[in-house]
Amino acid sequence: MDIEEFRKAGYQAIDRICDYFYSLGDRNVLSKVEPGYLRKALPAQAPEEGENFDKIADDFKDLILPGITHWQHPSFFAYFPTASTPEGILGDLYASSVSNPGFNWICSPACTELEAVVMDWAAKLFGLSDAFLNTSGVGGGVLQTTASESGLTAVVAARARYLTTHPDVPLEKLVLYVTTQTHSLGNKAALILGLQYRTLDVTVDDNYGLRAKSFKQALEEDKAAGKHPFMLIATVGSTSIGAIDHVSEVGEVARQYDLWLHVDAAWAGVVLACPEYRGMCQLEGINTYAHSFCLNFHKWGLVNFDASAMWIRDRKLLTDALDITPTYLRTKEADEGTVIDYRNWQLPLGRRFRSLKVWFVLRSFGLNGFREHIRKGIALSKKFNALVESSPQFEIVTPPSITLTVFRLLPSTDSGVDKSDTEAVNQLNQMYQRRLHAADLFLTQTDVNKMFSIRLVIGSTRTEEEHIQRAFEIMVREIGPTIEEWKKRRETS
Amino acid sequence: MDIEEFRKAGYQAIDRICDYFYSLGDRNVLSKVEPGYLRKALPAQAPEEGENFDKIADDFKDLILPGITHWQHPSFFAYFPTASTPEGILGDLYASSVSNPGFNWICSPACTELEAVVMDWAAKLFGLSDAFLNTSGVGGGVLQTTASESGLTAVVAARARYLTTHPDVPLEKLVLYVTTQTHSLGNKAALILGLQYRTLDVTVDDNYGLRAKSFKQALEEDKAAGKHPFMLIATVGSTSIGAIDHVSEVGEVARQYDLWLHVDAAWAGVVLACPEYRGMCQLEGINTYAHSFCLNFHKWGLVNFDASAMWIRDRKLLTDALDITPTYLRTKEADEGTVIDYRNWQLPLGRRFRSLKVWFVLRSFGLNGFREHIRKGIALSKKFNALVESSPQFEIVTPPSITLTVFRLLPSTDSGVDKSDTEAVNQLNQMYQRRLHAADLFLTQTDVNKMFSIRLVIGSTRTEEEHIQRAFEIMVREIGPTIEEWKKRRETS
Repeated sequence: MDIEEFRKAGYQAIDRICDYFYSLGDRNVLSKVEPGYLRKALPAQAPEEGENFDKIADDFKDLILPGITHWQHPSFFAYFPTASTPEGILGDLYASSVSNPGFNWICSPACTELEAVVMDWAAKLFGLSDAFLNTSGVGGGVLQTTASESGLTAVVAARARYLTTHPDVPLEKLVLYVTTQTHSLGNKAALILGLQYRTLDVTVDDNYGLRAKSFKQALEEDKAAGKHPFMLIATVGSTSIGAIDHVSEVGEVARQYDLWLHVDAAWAGVVLACPEYRGMCQLEGINTYAHSFCLNFHKWGLVNFDASAMWIRDRKLLTDALDITPTYLRTKEADEGTVIDYRNWQLPLGRRFRSLKVWFVLRSFGLNGFREHIRKGIALSKKFNALVESSPQFEIVTPPSITLTVFRLLPSTDSGVDKSDTEAVNQLNQMYQRRLHAADLFLTQTDVNKMFSIRLVIGSTRTEEEHIQRAFEIMVREIGPTIEEWKKRRETS
Repeated sequence: MDIEEFRKAGYQAIDRICDYFYSLGDRNVLSKVEPGYLRKALPAQAPEEGENFDKIADDFKDLILPGITHWQHPSFFAYFPTASTPEGILGDLYASSVSNPGFNWICSPACTELEAVVMDWAAKLFGLSDAFLNTSGVGGGVLQTTASESGLTAVVAARARYLTTHPDVPLEKLVLYVTTQTHSLGNKAALILGLQYRTLDVTVDDNYGLRAKSFKQALEEDKAAGKHPFMLIATVGSTSIGAIDHVSEVGEVARQYDLWLHVDAAWAGVVLACPEYRGMCQLEGINTYAHSFCLNFHKWGLVNFDASAMWIRDRKLLTDALDITPTYLRTKEADEGTVIDYRNWQLPLGRRFRSLKVWFVLRSFGLNGFREHIRKGIALSKKFNALVESSPQFEIVTPPSITLTVFRLLPSTDSGVDKSDTEAVNQLNQMYQRRLHAADLFLTQTDVNKMFSIRLVIGSTRTEEEHIQRAFEIMVREIGPTIEEWKKRRETS
């Protein structure tokens, strides 16, 4: 494809993306394809001779789009949102044109330097301590692919830090702490690194947030058993129910026991843009105690996947753990932060030019626009919560958190469902969820103390009150048929 | 930005990328900016109110482009190439519009299914054994970000496999094998995982490729010392000099000692598209012995960064190591390969829709077009080698490998340089490299048995014979002034 063919195909792509955006509200959220649909539609090998790009672009429309679950749909409420804004798309487009592996400064100085600048812009937007600024020369920010990569990177640095002062401790004795609410990234990091982890219980009385007392008790038990606690992953806004650990409390314990504190705010962290939520979202604890902190721009933060923002209080703890450059090759400039070699802040060598889309988004929305987007989502969520609370057929299972509502169908006893029979209520809710999916209301489930519960999360830029209303109408409409289906199943079993 | 503003900004981006491509040959390869140039040019924080996108797009042109080292330049010969083709850009553009985290099938069935299909297309293109096809239901292919991530993932799986049969072996006793030629990704994987590695010597007599005898000897030594060898990373086309390990030989040893064999062909692997290079590039050894194999489409393989192709002979060894889904949640379909959950084939949870750009490239170029691109690079490299060999002032340090030439300036003794004085010759070549960079011929260095050597690699789609000629002219032109500079330095020191 030559340059003029690229221009033509590029215009076409832009036009088709515009068509796609206009059509989004009229599409189903959930893809309806069957497993294996695409292999059936495609040849078993690539063509010998090149094909015309028009045909390829048509196949994207005809074969790929039907297999897409539309995370950008105004009625997408599953998992957590994944952003795709025009600005984010344009950032990735320009970045593609100057593709380079970005592993050191000279690969393309602009890539390293823009990342250092926008991560400072972001740190200020979220109210982070100056200690986390790249300009501090000590701490700093970096864009990783995902919160799991940010978390894994932090665990590697924490392990290296612990072993520096405890060189004779076998790896098998180290313990990483998570809670029952921590994202599976914690367990997966331990699995990848072959380390032990301990999952701390959190209670409904503490709103599923970790507190000092139980954390301290676990540390004492484990130390008494000869284990070596080295790190806690705390969470602000857990995936399951949006739980928030008491970061100041557990941070102080982590400090006393010399543990690394990583705070994972992958989803909820962007709320820190709004000063009125900084208390709730533990900003003070993060600023005082966290060795590392992560939030994902690519969830609710308007920047296309992937853009996981990670800050570290002491960059040397990262580079000591990850730098394979021998000492005699280290440069004064890199150590001082005049020139950052971001390859030593991450697990892989190569890296994409992710900061460009963050720059585009922050400039095009402005800080006020960013905050408005967050506040709009929270306002819509409050409206949704009011709807759910208005119906005696639903139970709010855990207190609504930011834009996440966890609820279940709990109809009055005259419906035939015994409210105290958890298994029966779970069956009913599983049926209910399947019916909601069939009605194209895609909500994902979670388990709260063995209660099968349903999550609804708001965060798309396109979501308006009408979409919340429509979701609630489907929820109400499916109650009766679900109870009927459940009764029939009971009768026949 | 609304949809029509996006259309306008999108057209503008496409036009500007076309302008950029037209202008590439007239630009400097190397960015000339000073460290810190961008921070000086940008405000200390993001704007409160949103800015007009025209201004933002202009800033990309005026502030970012000058800080780019142009890897797409026809005269880019440093490191290894990083691809950026129109097809690759369009693939990423369409993918951005349907952004989703892709961690399971239902996230967007098309993303998982297209990846499974194109990785099979690619396996066939490169002549891989049917064992590596996704359709085998046992092995399969996956797109990772980088060769370092592919390698790290393989090490995690290899460690898990070894510990399954040796559950009582402490992590500290495991040994990963690399050679002096292995990419630092091997050492970095060991560093990340806290494992021992042993670096095997390879000799000039073996063309710096690992052979059975020395490998076996190391294994025996380590076993006798109570260590537990569990994995070898072999290389086809090393970063430093393009060395190729004798994969069949060392693969047989790895089999005998029950080690995992990972073959890293990050750069050179795409050569396997051409049957005439399959013997040289150890295809039989890979097909017979490799547990895992990696090549990067995003280097010389026409697909934009990132697109690291990784194949595994037994997917269960990956998912057993990385799946955190409890057993009772595993699905028959996922285990059988009817539905793949690629999150269990990689370290992070979320993943981008990378297969789209691979699909676009393979279809638009066709298999023949892909092979032509590879053969063109090799033909150009041969011409360059002939030029270097035609001059008595240069020494080819290691045998040219595929499209990589490693040479140094070694002028005749009447120039005043004592050829047998390695330190003097190294100083001369360091000066020479600096002069080449100043003349915008960006070539990176390597160390071969303490000889400071210079690498020239070919692989851009835009490189033609004239660019090779021009590079050689600069090389010749700078010889005299370098010797003069070197003499002056000698006299004054």
